[in-house]
Amino acid sequence: MTTQKEVTIYDIAEALDLSPATVSRGLKDHPAIRKDTRKRIVEKARELGYQHNSFASNLRRNKTNTIGVIVPRLNSYFMSTVIAGMEKVANAGGYNLIISQSMESVDKEVANVKTLFNSRVDGFLVSLAYDTEDLSHFDMVLDKNIPLIFFDRVFEHPKCISIVIDNFKAAYEVTTHLISQGCKRIVHISANLKRNVYTDRLRGYKAALLDHNIPYDEKLVFFNNLSDQAGIEVSEAILKMEQRPDGIFSSNDACAVSCIRQLKLAGLKVPTDIAVAGFNNDPLSKVIEPNLTTVNYPGQEMGELAASTLIRRLDRLEGANLNTMVLRHDLIVRESSLKKG
Amino acid sequence: MTTQKEVTIYDIAEALDLSPATVSRGLKDHPAIRKDTRKRIVEKARELGYQHNSFASNLRRNKTNTIGVIVPRLNSYFMSTVIAGMEKVANAGGYNLIISQSMESVDKEVANVKTLFNSRVDGFLVSLAYDTEDLSHFDMVLDKNIPLIFFDRVFEHPKCISIVIDNFKAAYEVTTHLISQGCKRIVHISANLKRNVYTDRLRGYKAALLDHNIPYDEKLVFFNNLSDQAGIEVSEAILKMEQRPDGIFSSNDACAVSCIRQLKLAGLKVPTDIAVAGFNNDPLSKVIEPNLTTVNYPGQEMGELAASTLIRRLDRLEGANLNTMVLRHDLIVRESSLKKG
Repeated sequence: MTTQKEVTIYDIAEALDLSPATVSRGLKDHPAIRKDTRKRIVEKARELGYQHNSFASNLRRNKTNTIGVIVPRLNSYFMSTVIAGMEKVANAGGYNLIISQSMESVDKEVANVKTLFNSRVDGFLVSLAYDTEDLSHFDMVLDKNIPLIFFDRVFEHPKCISIVIDNFKAAYEVTTHLISQGCKRIVHISANLKRNVYTDRLRGYKAALLDHNIPYDEKLVFFNNLSDQAGIEVSEAILKMEQRPDGIFSSNDACAVSCIRQLKLAGLKVPTDIAVAGFNNDPLSKVIEPNLTTVNYPGQEMGELAASTLIRRLDRLEGANLNTMVLRHDLIVRESSLKKG
Repeated sequence: MTTQKEVTIYDIAEALDLSPATVSRGLKDHPAIRKDTRKRIVEKARELGYQHNSFASNLRRNKTNTIGVIVPRLNSYFMSTVIAGMEKVANAGGYNLIISQSMESVDKEVANVKTLFNSRVDGFLVSLAYDTEDLSHFDMVLDKNIPLIFFDRVFEHPKCISIVIDNFKAAYEVTTHLISQGCKRIVHISANLKRNVYTDRLRGYKAALLDHNIPYDEKLVFFNNLSDQAGIEVSEAILKMEQRPDGIFSSNDACAVSCIRQLKLAGLKVPTDIAVAGFNNDPLSKVIEPNLTTVNYPGQEMGELAASTLIRRLDRLEGANLNTMVLRHDLIVRESSLKKG
């Protein structure tokens, strides 16, 4: 009786003097493996009779090696760095990203979840839309135990991991810095409070005021979509105030930069008349004059961590009890807030 | 004998006093239709016995109502406006976008085509990677007559439509403008000449020099990836030149802005010592001081046109003989190039 031993990737690896990992990726036609190497691997696999088993294994695993990403919009530097980090890790791990935008609308987010679910993505990386109020549209994903990781704009769920920075602390630091420069009437520009990032920053702003005995004045807090246009409108409102503010803390850099431009056009001096700080460390912050004080938000690292955590979960290398991962941020002080040189 | 007439969307539309288009989209659960309206439509469809036919029709059509988009990278303002235009039109037409990045690598572009093909997208919108040399990886798509439209970075193919701007003419206009301001030694910053956008701009630059009797000097043309870092390196090279250039025409704004910053740091005056012009009309161009002369590239319109052309083709509303569509551009003159006020 002769039973033929099953050919494994280790046999192919040995025959070609390659690592098993290289063989495995070569069989999946992974772009990180050189084309001629992939060709050699596939030929050797056929020669040894591996082909069929590999195919069966792919079917059994039922994997597409695709990660679905849902983001509010792709139009910010922050989001493009997050996506770049995800691509880097996904690519190295043999996964491809497919990305969709919710355009800040829960209805579209619902449609995106369905589309990516029907594309049979292996896992999801999600930053929530402006107006998402619950996670019921993810039930089909979670019911099938497809891993789902939230980043930046997150929502607590027992089956999901959240990856964030400490938005409360970052906002506390920005506000305290403005106070240390002599600011006493600080405008805060915020957005939809359904999203953790904006509530946490508002809380940090309030806590810093409280700790420095500055009364909280709700007339100094603006809620909008943090666009260039929003910055123009806030500036106009500031210019009309009887008692003019001496500081601005905007929840993003785009809106902060728009304020600086608009206030300069109106003849105000930044930071002498009014100090300005933003959030994200967008490249814009180093182009505007004076350069903008901001918070470095490690988008690339957040994207890398989100993708690697998802892949470890897909490979069942990690337990399910991890809940939240917090990345480091940095306050970057530049001329736009330095009243005291 | 009674034969029951087949219920159509027109019957549902009449019963609910809605347009057939609204009913059709409501049955597809399209987010542009209000939730309560969708609910009314689905209920009426069930009541009239439509449900089953609709499902059969979806199967027959074999459509996923998904458009696959492949772009080099998502990290530019230009690309995010293109994508925004696509989303707008796709969304209104009941389609969802899924997007992937080639990261400027043909190997990854190949993987992306496979992933999106396996996701059974109805059509493709593609801007090519840096090093793509032929379209053989699209054969599986074209063999199945899945519509494929190229935008911005295009490649001629009898089955495909290309959507572009007149890059030759735009570059000719920028260069002629710099010459009209007195520039005689104009640096051109270009990128990979496998891509139409860069060859066409280089041709336009050369043609303008020729028409104004300025000799072409290959030492004044730089090839790089048009990043911030590339701008720093070009600036350093310029500062070392014995005979200093008096103008720069960069193939994008990011690199032009980086040059302005670097040259200002070295003590040069823009535009007096050296005039600078970019390409794309990125928001950066209005933040840098002096504001940057550039070419308005209608990204949003390009995205809208690409998506609407694809959808018309999917709906078989348009013949196959359309080859190229050219959008209007505009030269926007700002202070960075105005030597003569």
